[in-house]
Amino acid sequence: MTEKEFCLDVQRRKRLGMVEAVYGENKTSEQISSILLKLHLEGEVGLVTRVSVEKAKDLEGLLENLQFHPQAGCLTVGMPSDQDSSLGEVIVLSGGTSDIGVAAEAEVALKCHGVRVELLIDVGVAGLHRLLNNLERLKKAKVLIACAGMEGSLPTILSGLVPQPVIGVPVSVGYGVSAAGRTALEGMLASCAPGLVVVNIDNGYGAAMAALRILKSI
Amino acid sequence: MTEKEFCLDVQRRKRLGMVEAVYGENKTSEQISSILLKLHLEGEVGLVTRVSVEKAKDLEGLLENLQFHPQAGCLTVGMPSDQDSSLGEVIVLSGGTSDIGVAAEAEVALKCHGVRVELLIDVGVAGLHRLLNNLERLKKAKVLIACAGMEGSLPTILSGLVPQPVIGVPVSVGYGVSAAGRTALEGMLASCAPGLVVVNIDNGYGAAMAALRILKSI
Amino acid sequence: MTEKEFCLDVQRRKRLGMVEAVYGENKTSEQISSILLKLHLEGEVGLVTRVSVEKAKDLEGLLENLQFHPQAGCLTVGMPSDQDSSLGEVIVLSGGTSDIGVAAEAEVALKCHGVRVELLIDVGVAGLHRLLNNLERLKKAKVLIACAGMEGSLPTILSGLVPQPVIGVPVSVGYGVSAAGRTALEGMLASCAPGLVVVNIDNGYGAAMAALRILKSI
Amino acid sequence: MTEKEFCLDVQRRKRLGMVEAVYGENKTSEQISSILLKLHLEGEVGLVTRVSVEKAKDLEGLLENLQFHPQAGCLTVGMPSDQDSSLGEVIVLSGGTSDIGVAAEAEVALKCHGVRVELLIDVGVAGLHRLLNNLERLKKAKVLIACAGMEGSLPTILSGLVPQPVIGVPVSVGYGVSAAGRTALEGMLASCAPGLVVVNIDNGYGAAMAALRILKSI
Amino acid sequence: MTEKEFCLDVQRRKRLGMVEAVYGENKTSEQISSILLKLHLEGEVGLVTRVSVEKAKDLEGLLENLQFHPQAGCLTVGMPSDQDSSLGEVIVLSGGTSDIGVAAEAEVALKCHGVRVELLIDVGVAGLHRLLNNLERLKKAKVLIACAGMEGSLPTILSGLVPQPVIGVPVSVGYGVSAAGRTALEGMLASCAPGLVVVNIDNGYGAAMAALRILKSI
Amino acid sequence: MTEKEFCLDVQRRKRLGMVEAVYGENKTSEQISSILLKLHLEGEVGLVTRVSVEKAKDLEGLLENLQFHPQAGCLTVGMPSDQDSSLGEVIVLSGGTSDIGVAAEAEVALKCHGVRVELLIDVGVAGLHRLLNNLERLKKAKVLIACAGMEGSLPTILSGLVPQPVIGVPVSVGYGVSAAGRTALEGMLASCAPGLVVVNIDNGYGAAMAALRILKSI
Amino acid sequence: MTEKEFCLDVQRRKRLGMVEAVYGENKTSEQISSILLKLHLEGEVGLVTRVSVEKAKDLEGLLENLQFHPQAGCLTVGMPSDQDSSLGEVIVLSGGTSDIGVAAEAEVALKCHGVRVELLIDVGVAGLHRLLNNLERLKKAKVLIACAGMEGSLPTILSGLVPQPVIGVPVSVGYGVSAAGRTALEGMLASCAPGLVVVNIDNGYGAAMAALRILKSI
Amino acid sequence: MTEKEFCLDVQRRKRLGMVEAVYGENKTSEQISSILLKLHLEGEVGLVTRVSVEKAKDLEGLLENLQFHPQAGCLTVGMPSDQDSSLGEVIVLSGGTSDIGVAAEAEVALKCHGVRVELLIDVGVAGLHRLLNNLERLKKAKVLIACAGMEGSLPTILSGLVPQPVIGVPVSVGYGVSAAGRTALEGMLASCAPGLVVVNIDNGYGAAMAALRILKSI
Repeated sequence: MTEKEFCLDVQRRKRLGMVEAVYGENKTSEQISSILLKLHLEGEVGLVTRVSVEKAKDLEGLLENLQFHPQAGCLTVGMPSDQDSSLGEVIVLSGGTSDIGVAAEAEVALKCHGVRVELLIDVGVAGLHRLLNNLERLKKAKVLIACAGMEGSLPTILSGLVPQPVIGVPVSVGYGVSAAGRTALEGMLASCAPGLVVVNIDNGYGAAMAALRILKSI
Repeated sequence: MTEKEFCLDVQRRKRLGMVEAVYGENKTSEQISSILLKLHLEGEVGLVTRVSVEKAKDLEGLLENLQFHPQAGCLTVGMPSDQDSSLGEVIVLSGGTSDIGVAAEAEVALKCHGVRVELLIDVGVAGLHRLLNNLERLKKAKVLIACAGMEGSLPTILSGLVPQPVIGVPVSVGYGVSAAGRTALEGMLASCAPGLVVVNIDNGYGAAMAALRILKSI
Repeated sequence: MTEKEFCLDVQRRKRLGMVEAVYGENKTSEQISSILLKLHLEGEVGLVTRVSVEKAKDLEGLLENLQFHPQAGCLTVGMPSDQDSSLGEVIVLSGGTSDIGVAAEAEVALKCHGVRVELLIDVGVAGLHRLLNNLERLKKAKVLIACAGMEGSLPTILSGLVPQPVIGVPVSVGYGVSAAGRTALEGMLASCAPGLVVVNIDNGYGAAMAALRILKSI
Repeated sequence: MTEKEFCLDVQRRKRLGMVEAVYGENKTSEQISSILLKLHLEGEVGLVTRVSVEKAKDLEGLLENLQFHPQAGCLTVGMPSDQDSSLGEVIVLSGGTSDIGVAAEAEVALKCHGVRVELLIDVGVAGLHRLLNNLERLKKAKVLIACAGMEGSLPTILSGLVPQPVIGVPVSVGYGVSAAGRTALEGMLASCAPGLVVVNIDNGYGAAMAALRILKSI
Repeated sequence: MTEKEFCLDVQRRKRLGMVEAVYGENKTSEQISSILLKLHLEGEVGLVTRVSVEKAKDLEGLLENLQFHPQAGCLTVGMPSDQDSSLGEVIVLSGGTSDIGVAAEAEVALKCHGVRVELLIDVGVAGLHRLLNNLERLKKAKVLIACAGMEGSLPTILSGLVPQPVIGVPVSVGYGVSAAGRTALEGMLASCAPGLVVVNIDNGYGAAMAALRILKSI
Repeated sequence: MTEKEFCLDVQRRKRLGMVEAVYGENKTSEQISSILLKLHLEGEVGLVTRVSVEKAKDLEGLLENLQFHPQAGCLTVGMPSDQDSSLGEVIVLSGGTSDIGVAAEAEVALKCHGVRVELLIDVGVAGLHRLLNNLERLKKAKVLIACAGMEGSLPTILSGLVPQPVIGVPVSVGYGVSAAGRTALEGMLASCAPGLVVVNIDNGYGAAMAALRILKSI
Repeated sequence: MTEKEFCLDVQRRKRLGMVEAVYGENKTSEQISSILLKLHLEGEVGLVTRVSVEKAKDLEGLLENLQFHPQAGCLTVGMPSDQDSSLGEVIVLSGGTSDIGVAAEAEVALKCHGVRVELLIDVGVAGLHRLLNNLERLKKAKVLIACAGMEGSLPTILSGLVPQPVIGVPVSVGYGVSAAGRTALEGMLASCAPGLVVVNIDNGYGAAMAALRILKSI
Repeated sequence: MTEKEFCLDVQRRKRLGMVEAVYGENKTSEQISSILLKLHLEGEVGLVTRVSVEKAKDLEGLLENLQFHPQAGCLTVGMPSDQDSSLGEVIVLSGGTSDIGVAAEAEVALKCHGVRVELLIDVGVAGLHRLLNNLERLKKAKVLIACAGMEGSLPTILSGLVPQPVIGVPVSVGYGVSAAGRTALEGMLASCAPGLVVVNIDNGYGAAMAALRILKSI
């Protein structure tokens, strides 16, 4: 039996235009293997998030088109190698290397749908010049995904600088009041920058799907 | 002196494509009057949110193009009467009439930017058929804004049914655990529907600006 | 000495009509063994919840009528093989396989009391058609137990569709704001569906006992 | 336009067997009047909860079969004077007169559906003998609704004494840690008594609808 | 160097009449050993709380008058074997065996000060007769310490039945809303029983010191 | 009908040795009047807490032995003028005049039971010398009640200086994180001073009853 | 009798070098009047914070050197007109006019101690250029006090740009998750900018006293 | 690639006068090694916080000027051996040995910047004489850093006794309500002592950088 924490169902691709995605955290290698085989048989693209290195090793070689993305902690099957540039580009920003895992999950999830996506790391607000130096490049993207832990002000600053859709992703890094990502989350929701939207803590996948909805709605 | 809780600045329109918006809750009629006159002089469109009926009465007749929107609790100056249909339509949904104030704030904020927008009230999930009966109509919008209080499941259900961007707005109605809108907020963030994005509780204005960013990014 | 976290006492069966139930989480295999032997000697049916596979292995073969239910994480002694269909049926629903453990605990607890019970998995609200397709079947049960994690809207949707008693069980799955089951719990309590009742997070056993009280009260 | 916070819809009576109920707290006398007239025209029984004495005065004499229940803060239209004793009786308990408002809301809501119901006040656990003296009487009810503020232990004690369904209703009385009813709510959820179910703080109406679902399921 | 989390100082015995007590949780066997030796040299009675079985084994045989109390998780050095009955007796109650560790910590801490103390286990409120059967015995104690997890109503019920000082100790057992002992703590603070006092979650030692202050004040 | 939020019952005086006490906050002058008359008829001493100046004026002259204590916000009927010095003295401390209301409620509640009690105001820890200068006097009391808002460290400091029972009462004064008294409450519970016990926020009455239990247990 | 919520004592000026400050929120005009007269008689400078316009009017003309500062909501008696420029300057920043009250309280409190202080309003991060344009001026101050509500990122951004001490003051403006200033507070504490320190929500006075401690320590 | 959780950037030293600091908790020995080598090559002083003994062993001998500070859990490269006494001294206080880790992190961070710093352990408020005996010595420091767990009153008491800047560092020691350092944090923020400033829980590094900002601003 296959577990599906993101509440997947077989008609999702048709209904929502999204590939099958499976939350891998609480699943055994056997359960993931069975899901992947099923997806492969049906010729579907598949994405498993929150996969540990150990589980990825167990599944090595299972299928020809199976790929492990270690930074993102994701397994994909049948991920397209080409990207559909007509949809427009997404840029995923993060303040430091601690946020990379979440940013990379968003990147892989977008690539599974053939979306052009770029990562821009190390643009945290404590060294503001790094963000300001990238403004022109940022303005070329259709959607921006900004990942940030601690006080989480990157998406706020960004939304005050550029006119595009900005999706804030709070990240559970830090200690004390910032440990679980709550402070970053609430800071983004309380933001004084108009039109910033937010997803759950560490939800790189969700931010990617929101970006996809936007790109497809155009 | 003009107070601006949404952190406005004179270059915002140029930078972000958004009109001047002022948070009216803690301002006196005099302060709002002074802001409106200044905006009028500069030929700017202006929006004041969270304006009570009393304050609106104080300001009646101040300017020719001043309008009070009682359901939304908003004052506008210079709101365009036409809507730019090339941008695409936004539909604002709510589960009950208790959410109308927030939904109407979103509607007015979008109209200030010339966006075509429609309100769809009374589609709460406790009577699911009402939502299901409107699916075809919903699919024609570019962006959906779903306002909900109490347990806040409307945006979750909606995101599972349609492929467009859905922006959830938690509403502070109810009592007990739902009184302040927290439960609706967290329910939307925790949602099992992929790609749902969220703004602060009662932030109809913010949802509208997010929709505007999306429409303009196309 | 026997530990009993659910505050058991020897007269409970007589007073409340419920078999002995023991919370196994913090107990050693030795403690559980001693409880089971005592129950067996007295000819009582017994249920131990939250038993790990390791502890279950330690106790294998201890008694003839000892059964381990791996999905539920429960040990039973003297569980009746027949079910008393005169009491009426209970259906336990869950949105995904992540909720199965809690749903299965409810199922086992009901079977210990001879209640007819059925599990209905994979009816999460993100793919609403799955729930709608089962409505007729659901209407045949006397009581419905709906387990859900994340935003926990399954019991809300269900209570809007059917007239029977619905017991919501929040499940501690997910991450970020949904990690500990709080969001699902509060969403169920704040529900706009009238007459939905709720038990503690992950409390499959408690939901079963509530269903039993209902069936016996008829 | 009619506001309906409890997410009412015209098919509810058919679908769920419940009369129209309207949350009156944020509604004006005019809005309530218009809802009542509409219900009266359709020959429906109607219930408006959380109605202040002032609003009730405004509406006095509006309809012949309109009744105000001051302790419950409820207006009813067309409430049946008879009770259907075949459904079985519900007893609503509360620990002190501070909980009476919530208990009375439950009572009125049940009477609107023709259910036999009795109030049992002043059985708080600080004087345990008052509860123990009523045990025989309590055992005759099909369902018990126990309202309690402060630490909220009445439903816990009750569930340990009787085998029937017990629905706990936390009440927002007290000060300090008990002010908003949270402590009573969580105490009921954490209860060591098996099978106790809970509704939202002050939700007398919800408890009544849960009792109704139980009585009708028999 | 010796660590002392309970903020000990060498003059405490003179000032407060309390023996040296050390919080052992974060200390190594070496650190505890060094503290014990120092206390022994000075002829002081000493108490180390939260000592694991492993650390206790490391220290076995270190000093002649060293004792490990496994249920309490405490080490004592120089604990008096006699009890000063002139001070009066303390009874420590708990609802189930899950609370025994905390109750036993209180017991050992009192014995270190020569106080007569008795444990009364298995008097949880879900089987109320067990408590009621012990009333006469309870009335003989000068002070009662009541340990309870989950909803924590034991001290409330007890304070309504007897006139003596009752010290409530919330215990961190359970799951969901009761997991960390918060619900029990707040339930005791919100209690409708007059004059109940409370200490921190799991603070058996603190309850014992409060009882000692009372006995000595007489 | 008389409301009784502190869960009073007629046998309380016999069972617990405490006079009738009534929580006046949510009661009308009429309700309080009726309770007072009933108590007077039965020759009982009575205490009503949280009575506003307005209600006190309404009741002026109702009974000969009726007294209003404005600082405490309490009404008493039949309060003894003498104090039983054999029971020993209680001293109630507070850090500033903001805490006086709570301290005075404790004082009045003790006087109703004939206990000798003294108020010691203005001994807040920010000017430590004020507390240190009173040490000798404090050591003469049998029980100390320490009221404190903001960070609430007075009871902690006090418990480190004197060996008697110290009852901490958190007070809801201040703003920001200290507004509702939570910070003072948790600071007292987390205190590094051994044997400090705590009651609910602003619960001067409860602290007095705890002191009474102690004095009577001697 | 004079109330003093900031725990004042007569030796404070000598011990800490701070003038008498009184928290005026819960005090009557009479109480404030009596405190001011006493301070005046002793030739002391005095500061009363949180004084409403109404109370200020009551006290108008009481003393010659009495001043009301309406924006700050403060009364001062004997405030020095000169400022001691040898101590160095403090700049108080705020993001919008909603934060002005708190910023002005800090300004008045510093002026009472003869400190040179300047207000810099409207430098919120949503229009970053406003802050960047003031960098040179900011670098001349010895200490910076940054007031911010909503997500509170101003102090974080500031601390990344300048090397001086930055004291963050969270402000209770906004709605939803930002309503009470909690989000701003936690964002400042979680800040990725090294060496940012924080005071309680709305505590302009406290920030001023922290700045004073710094200036005097030099 | 180098991870930098404290949002470092290469221009920080020039801009803020602070050496490179790296949050080591989530980094592997390899990542830390690569950062240290890079810093060494550029002739920079470097500090890595939250380094376990295991990781420190892995890196032993990597560089000549590499030092591990076990109590602080810090690695430094190129830490100056001299201290610049012209800047003035900082004293770091803590109440018990449980707070030493955090206090030592502050000490090492200051030493990296050549600041004279001293540790004063075992001055917890439960034995007040220990603090009072050190007052003269404390008055010689320019800045005081006070680390405290549990109820966290040390910085409050200290700020009432000395006129210098006091930086409070809440420490995550204890259990129950004090477990995560929240209570200490909020107690410091709510403090009645004027001018106390606070940093995040366990943030010894941040307190040091705040002290450095102060010393440099003089």
